[in-house]
Amino acid sequence: MKHVICAECVKCKKKYEAAPNLTTCVCGGVTDILYDYEYIRFLLSKNALSDCRDMSMWRYRPFLPVEDATPAPPLRVGWSPLYDAGRLAREIGVKELKIKDDGLNPTSSLKDRASSVAVAKAFEAGAKTIACASTGNAASSLAGNAAAAGMKSVIFVPSRAPSGKIAQLLIFGAVVISVDGTYAECFRLSAEAVKKYGWYDRSAAVNPYLSEGKKTVSFEIAEQSGFAVPDYVAVSVGDGCTIAGIWKGFKDMFASGCIERLPRLISVQAEGCRPINRAAETGLPPEPSEENTTADSIAVGIPRNADKAINAIKEANGLTVDVSDGEISEAMKILGQTSGVFGEPAGVAGTAGLIKAAKNGLIEKNARVVSVVTGNGLKDTASALRAAGNPISIPPDTGALEKIFPIRDA
Amino acid sequence: MKHVICAECVKCKKKYEAAPNLTTCVCGGVTDILYDYEYIRFLLSKNALSDCRDMSMWRYRPFLPVEDATPAPPLRVGWSPLYDAGRLAREIGVKELKIKDDGLNPTSSLKDRASSVAVAKAFEAGAKTIACASTGNAASSLAGNAAAAGMKSVIFVPSRAPSGKIAQLLIFGAVVISVDGTYAECFRLSAEAVKKYGWYDRSAAVNPYLSEGKKTVSFEIAEQSGFAVPDYVAVSVGDGCTIAGIWKGFKDMFASGCIERLPRLISVQAEGCRPINRAAETGLPPEPSEENTTADSIAVGIPRNADKAINAIKEANGLTVDVSDGEISEAMKILGQTSGVFGEPAGVAGTAGLIKAAKNGLIEKNARVVSVVTGNGLKDTASALRAAGNPISIPPDTGALEKIFPIRDA
Repeated sequence: MKHVICAECVKCKKKYEAAPNLTTCVCGGVTDILYDYEYIRFLLSKNALSDCRDMSMWRYRPFLPVEDATPAPPLRVGWSPLYDAGRLAREIGVKELKIKDDGLNPTSSLKDRASSVAVAKAFEAGAKTIACASTGNAASSLAGNAAAAGMKSVIFVPSRAPSGKIAQLLIFGAVVISVDGTYAECFRLSAEAVKKYGWYDRSAAVNPYLSEGKKTVSFEIAEQSGFAVPDYVAVSVGDGCTIAGIWKGFKDMFASGCIERLPRLISVQAEGCRPINRAAETGLPPEPSEENTTADSIAVGIPRNADKAINAIKEANGLTVDVSDGEISEAMKILGQTSGVFGEPAGVAGTAGLIKAAKNGLIEKNARVVSVVTGNGLKDTASALRAAGNPISIPPDTGALEKIFPIRDA
Repeated sequence: MKHVICAECVKCKKKYEAAPNLTTCVCGGVTDILYDYEYIRFLLSKNALSDCRDMSMWRYRPFLPVEDATPAPPLRVGWSPLYDAGRLAREIGVKELKIKDDGLNPTSSLKDRASSVAVAKAFEAGAKTIACASTGNAASSLAGNAAAAGMKSVIFVPSRAPSGKIAQLLIFGAVVISVDGTYAECFRLSAEAVKKYGWYDRSAAVNPYLSEGKKTVSFEIAEQSGFAVPDYVAVSVGDGCTIAGIWKGFKDMFASGCIERLPRLISVQAEGCRPINRAAETGLPPEPSEENTTADSIAVGIPRNADKAINAIKEANGLTVDVSDGEISEAMKILGQTSGVFGEPAGVAGTAGLIKAAKNGLIEKNARVVSVVTGNGLKDTASALRAAGNPISIPPDTGALEKIFPIRDA
């Protein structure tokens, strides 16, 4: 990998060769991939991108930490739509709002970006089985991307994960271990199994390549906006890997000369589970938190990528916003009704935080904002039904109809 | 619309002006849109397409029955991936199999293609409200596409529709009328309401523009295959509108000179609801059928586009295949495990039929086949769970793990 210099511990700055199965530093810190941006400038430019017909995250291959010979995994991940949400922008009082609908990825979440890179690195490592612990989306994305690439997957999920996510895993042929415990216990068991059985580890806690996949969402936001970087990017935060990846993506593009400025980040957590926001606000190390929110994908009491996430929030002069489950439900409805985008609770938490930030005057009225919707609402229809209420039930006759619509062209 | 000549009744051949709110013929037949292909040749070519950066169904605008000034609706519909399913091809014994994953559309089904055109035509008609009766996907696609375009939608659904689909409707802000009756009763009530309240009618039974939207899936299959048309295209059939649209798409491309041959169609219905296949086989008019299948999107006992569908099967020298619910479940698993594609029951019925046709020697071993997956499996996770079984539940300790994986690198 000529374009990759090495990996570096985010804590102690110790350097490592960027081997396919690199995990955490001896000090326990997560590692980060460092690039040769001068070399990348030769491989990639705005012009080259405008000619590129690969409408997937792999159009940014010069920015991805894989060998030239490594095949891009089969599922078409990325290049999700960036919608202009003009009505919602007016409603909440910002100049411009765009919605990046990452629920339209192959397994319906942003995590496909990470899993696509994980499958590529597992291929380089010569592994036949990939494992991870996940509250759901990381798992289903791994299962789907591994299946398409002809690899096996073993998934550890906490027993509370919604049935839609479990169904996906099983249909993709994953071996699914439902652990009657917390996410932390799932994680520990997965780590033990990886060590014991020699599987490739797709846990965002230890694998430095996952946020490298996730960063492609920022490349797309930049390119789909004509490289005019927004003032703010709002995103929901659970484990911390996604916001870290988003920040890395903008930094990569900036370092390579594709964009001329960096956005501020809005880090949104649930009120009932906000260890990263708390740490970012206080400057103290993150403390284990309760996991009290219906937004299951961000109910992560012990975030494993807290360091990367907190650094990202700090470097990006970021805002931290906490939202209630009620505010998340409300955002789900507003987003659907004004933009035709259906996000899962954790997926729209970023939008909920943005709405709250705008309402509280934390962002300027002339701001240009992007909200990343990280997962599809079909993943958790029970939450959607709670948010949206019930249909109007009637018997099949005209009289019943007239009671609902008494006048012409209602 | 310079490229549109007129509309024509598929039954009595009476011609009509292609007005935005055109419905059925006075004789009761559905109408079909006729194009000026000589004119279209000026507007569109293989070269022009290869330069086109609009990665949505609207890249084929010269083939769509809309005015030049009509804006394309906001949601990014179409340009779904066409995957090479090599392992599945070998498994079922055909030379080449490609999977068109139309579950990755904005509201997760192929119906978005029809609804996108419906919203455009409603705009031309000056309507503010669009209505339809649907078992689910047509409805959610209408609700989402209408919401994004700032239009109201009123949806009549039979009370048996899965909750995932209802949740989508409500989140998109549709007025949802759940009718305690059959699809036929839903349909009747919707038609009455449209007439009474002056809404735009998105029922596939009467609106000739919907199959014009659906045909774009064939344009994409052709273009994504480098204009090398497959020998067979397999698709599930309910109301009949989709298979009619698919055939129209290939005929359009052929008439305009973009492709040099036409594929054969494989029309797949559920054993418990096969009025179109029965009619195509016997040559007799379709008879009302029971609706006995878990594949709810194709449980249409009185198909309203039977004429267009039967004509398509006839013209395409098509095969008819009926599949059991068990075969549909099996196809769901095989597709997920070999290709990483998660389809809903009706969505994978086409694949089930293709597998059955190959097994029974109905298609040649050297055939090149495309199977269209019409809807995302997340729409009906209960069916997926029934098909896929349950995860392995364990307490959070290593001993439990060793019982499942007794050896290293399982």
